[in-house]
Amino acid sequence: MHVSDLVTPALIVEARTLDANLATMAKALPGSRLRPHVKAHKCTALARRQAELGSRGFTCATIREMEGMAAAGLGDDLLLANEVVDARRLGALDARVTVAVDSSETIAAAASGGVREVLIDVNVGLPRCGCKPDDAQRLAELARDSGLEVRGVMGYEGHLMMVEDPAERAQRVAESMAELSSAHEKVGGDIVSAGGTGTFDCNFAATEIQAGSYALMDTSYDQLGLPFEPALFILATVVSVSDKFAVADCGLKSLGMDHGNPRIEDAKVWFCSDEHVTFAPDSPAETPATPVRVGSRIRVVPAHVDPTIAYHERMHIVSGEEVIDSWPVDLRGW
Amino acid sequence: MHVSDLVTPALIVEARTLDANLATMAKALPGSRLRPHVKAHKCTALARRQAELGSRGFTCATIREMEGMAAAGLGDDLLLANEVVDARRLGALDARVTVAVDSSETIAAAASGGVREVLIDVNVGLPRCGCKPDDAQRLAELARDSGLEVRGVMGYEGHLMMVEDPAERAQRVAESMAELSSAHEKVGGDIVSAGGTGTFDCNFAATEIQAGSYALMDTSYDQLGLPFEPALFILATVVSVSDKFAVADCGLKSLGMDHGNPRIEDAKVWFCSDEHVTFAPDSPAETPATPVRVGSRIRVVPAHVDPTIAYHERMHIVSGEEVIDSWPVDLRGW
Repeated sequence: MHVSDLVTPALIVEARTLDANLATMAKALPGSRLRPHVKAHKCTALARRQAELGSRGFTCATIREMEGMAAAGLGDDLLLANEVVDARRLGALDARVTVAVDSSETIAAAASGGVREVLIDVNVGLPRCGCKPDDAQRLAELARDSGLEVRGVMGYEGHLMMVEDPAERAQRVAESMAELSSAHEKVGGDIVSAGGTGTFDCNFAATEIQAGSYALMDTSYDQLGLPFEPALFILATVVSVSDKFAVADCGLKSLGMDHGNPRIEDAKVWFCSDEHVTFAPDSPAETPATPVRVGSRIRVVPAHVDPTIAYHERMHIVSGEEVIDSWPVDLRGW
Repeated sequence: MHVSDLVTPALIVEARTLDANLATMAKALPGSRLRPHVKAHKCTALARRQAELGSRGFTCATIREMEGMAAAGLGDDLLLANEVVDARRLGALDARVTVAVDSSETIAAAASGGVREVLIDVNVGLPRCGCKPDDAQRLAELARDSGLEVRGVMGYEGHLMMVEDPAERAQRVAESMAELSSAHEKVGGDIVSAGGTGTFDCNFAATEIQAGSYALMDTSYDQLGLPFEPALFILATVVSVSDKFAVADCGLKSLGMDHGNPRIEDAKVWFCSDEHVTFAPDSPAETPATPVRVGSRIRVVPAHVDPTIAYHERMHIVSGEEVIDSWPVDLRGW
C-alpha cells in the first residue's frame, strides 16, 4: 500500500527511526535492565518488537493493557505500575502479574483479587501515587502478612524527566533515588523499578527502567538531546486553502493537546478545531518545492505522543512512500 | 447495574439533564429548524433520541460519522459540514448525502465520488473552511455544471459562539449572517445552514441550526447562561491519598485537554498525567459528608466534551445511582 492511499488523519510511524530508537535503547539497557512501558504506544505489535530485542518484562498503566499483553502472549512478567482498588481482573490473567501498592486498601485489593506479587510504590518527589519512603517497610510487612510476595519497590521520578541540564538532572535523580534505595533496604526483594526515557542514562539506582516514550519520542523529550528521534506523525490532507491560511483534516480528536498545539514543518499552526488544524504556510518563495494545495498531504507533529495515539485505531508503519505494516492500537480503553 | 459497578474511568450521562436539554432545544427549534451535529456525542443511540424529538436531518464532521448514521437508519438527510477531497465512501452510502464544498477541487471530488447534493460553504469570519462570500456564485455555477444539485449555503460563525454579552453576540451574528445571506441570494437553494449551541437563539438568518453541544454541554458554554445544563461527567476512582492531595484514575487519555484541566467539585485540580488526575480536596471541615478515601468515587467535569467523548467506547446513562442504559460511542475514527 502507498502512503497516499491512507485515509486521513492517519498515525504513521517511520520504520527506520523506530528501529533505530529500539536498537539504541536495547543496547543501552539490555535484557531485564529495561521494562518497556506500553502506555506510550498501546500496541502489542510494537511490544513484540521490544520483546524480540530482549525485554521479557513490561510495564503497563491500565488493567486493559495488562489483559491485552497477556492475550498477546507477552505475559512473562507484567507490572501494573499503578494502584487499583479492584484487582480481580488482574488475578484472573494467565500471566505473571505484579501490581504497585501504596496503601492498606490497595494491598487488600491485590490479595483479595488473586494477585500474588506486588511492588511497594514509593513517592520519590512527583505528587502522584506512592507511599512516603518511611512508610514502605510497614506496607511491605502488611503485604507479606496478607500472603503477597513483595518483589521490591518502585518510584517514578517523573518530575525530573524534563530537567534540561544533564548534570543537574543526574544529580537530582540521584537524590530522588536515594529515597527509593533507602526504602528498598527495608522492604527487600530483587526489584528497584524506576526511571523513564528522560532519565534512562542517569538513573543508576534502579535495577530496571520503565521507559516508554523512547520508541516513538515526543516533541518535549526531543529537546533533551537524547539519542532517540521522533518516529510518529499524523498524516493529514489539506481540504481548504485561502490566501492567508490552509486547513487540514487533523484536529482535537486526533491529537493529545495537553502540551499545546502540534507543529507543521514550514508553517505556523494557528489553532485546532475538532477535526481541523488551521495553519499558515511559510511564504511560497521559501518552499517552492511544496506548495500547499487542496489535496496536499502534510505531516503534523503532535505535541504529546501518548494521548495522541490513544485516539487512533491503528498505526501505519512506513518506509519512504510505502506502508509496510499496519498495527492495531489494541491496548486502548480500560 | 449500579453506578458503583462501572469500571473507571467511565463516561456517565445524567439521564434527566440530557432529556431536559433535548426537550428544550426541540421546543426552541422544532423539526427541520434544527440539524443536530453528531460530532459532539458520536453516538447513534443519542442521535436516535434527537430524531424522535423531530430532527430528521443531521450534521456530521467526518465520513465515518456519515457511514455510522446511515448504517443506523438515520440517513434521511445527512450533511457532511466539512470538505473532503475523496468522496467515494460518501457516494456509496445508502442515505441522502449532502457535502460542503468550497473549491473547484472539492466540487470535483463530490461529483466524481458519486455525491449528488452539495452546500456551498462560505467563510463568515472563522478562519477555517469556506469560500469568500463573493466567490460563492461562481462555485455554485461550477457545481451545477458538474451535475450537482446545490441545496444552498452553509457558514459557521464559530468565532462568535463565546461572545459573552448576548446583545453583542446577536449583533455580531447578524453581521456575519448578512454575508451568508448575500451569498445565498446568488447561490439559490432552500438551505441556509449555520449556527451552533452558542447562537441557537440569536441566529435568525439560518434556515437550520447545526447545534450539537447543547445535548451534553460544555464547561465553556456553561458560562453563557444558556438554557442547557452539563449532563456529562467522568466517573473516576480515587486510587491513592496522601496528606496534601489525592489521585484518581482519570487522565490525559480520558479527557480532551485543549480547554485546560477538568474540574472536580470541592477540590482543586493540580495536574493530569496519562491515567491520573492529582487534586487537593478542600479542607475536610468544609466537606464532612464526602471525605476522599482510597476507593472513593468522584465526578470529574471535562473542560471540553467533544474530544473527551472521542476517547471512550461507551457512555453510561444514569439516573441516581442506577445505570439505566449504556450506549456505544460508535461514530469514532475516520
